[in-house]
Amino acid sequence: MKDSFQIFPVGIIIKQNENSVIKIYDKYIDALLGLDQFSHIQVSYWFHKNDTPSKRNILRVHPRGKESNPITGVFATHSSVRPNLIAFSTCKILSIEENFIKVDTIDAFDETPVIDIKAYISPGYSKEEIITPDWVRR
Amino acid sequence: MKDSFQIFPVGIIIKQNENSVIKIYDKYIDALLGLDQFSHIQVSYWFHKNDTPSKRNILRVHPRGKESNPITGVFATHSSVRPNLIAFSTCKILSIEENFIKVDTIDAFDETPVIDIKAYISPGYSKEEIITPDWVRR
Repeated sequence: MKDSFQIFPVGIIIKQNENSVIKIYDKYIDALLGLDQFSHIQVSYWFHKNDTPSKRNILRVHPRGKESNPITGVFATHSSVRPNLIAFSTCKILSIEENFIKVDTIDAFDETPVIDIKAYISPGYSKEEIITPDWVRR
Repeated sequence: MKDSFQIFPVGIIIKQNENSVIKIYDKYIDALLGLDQFSHIQVSYWFHKNDTPSKRNILRVHPRGKESNPITGVFATHSSVRPNLIAFSTCKILSIEENFIKVDTIDAFDETPVIDIKAYISPGYSKEEIITPDWVRR
């Protein structure tokens, strides 16, 4: 097996006043066919500001940067420091025009590289089934 | 901005008879602290069998490999061919022992490289809000 894999950005996040726009690069526009039949997408992006060897070696954090939250392994958080800087957000599609997808909101900086888009098909599990520690609900 | 990013596997999927086990490599074991307080995880993995330039250039498919499903852009599917070979599954944790996470089920081949683990916090949207095309529900 290869000991590393290569990710190529497929687009970029453009933050606007209230909404956010995902610009898909021309090379990938054919991959959007049919996306307009879905209400929601899962956007994967790259925490590019943390792409340094030292930050990628951080394995434990105080969640949400709050010292009152217990030291936690990054796999038990959504921290933006982690070995592979993959982020994802589920977003509601507001419009798709050519290679621009406008969404309700996305928790990412302007100009963040987008690495994948997936149609959102099902929430999978119900809220009642999900157990989380106290700090998540504070 | 960099024109590509590097992913390092953090573990591997081991398929068993009924369940699946995620083995986290020793180097990353500290990142698991606190994960046992969650019921579910989102596992990101890499469709390593499709990591060739020609497969990564496929932008449209018949979803689920069925010719009766309309030709669709890969961003509107969960296809295992896509520009960046990122997959994710939400799984229920059955047990965590040292660096082995046993989960209910995961739709991946044996020995698939794992690239990230995130605690699953919320389904985000309710089933009633999600709109999908007919082929998803067939």
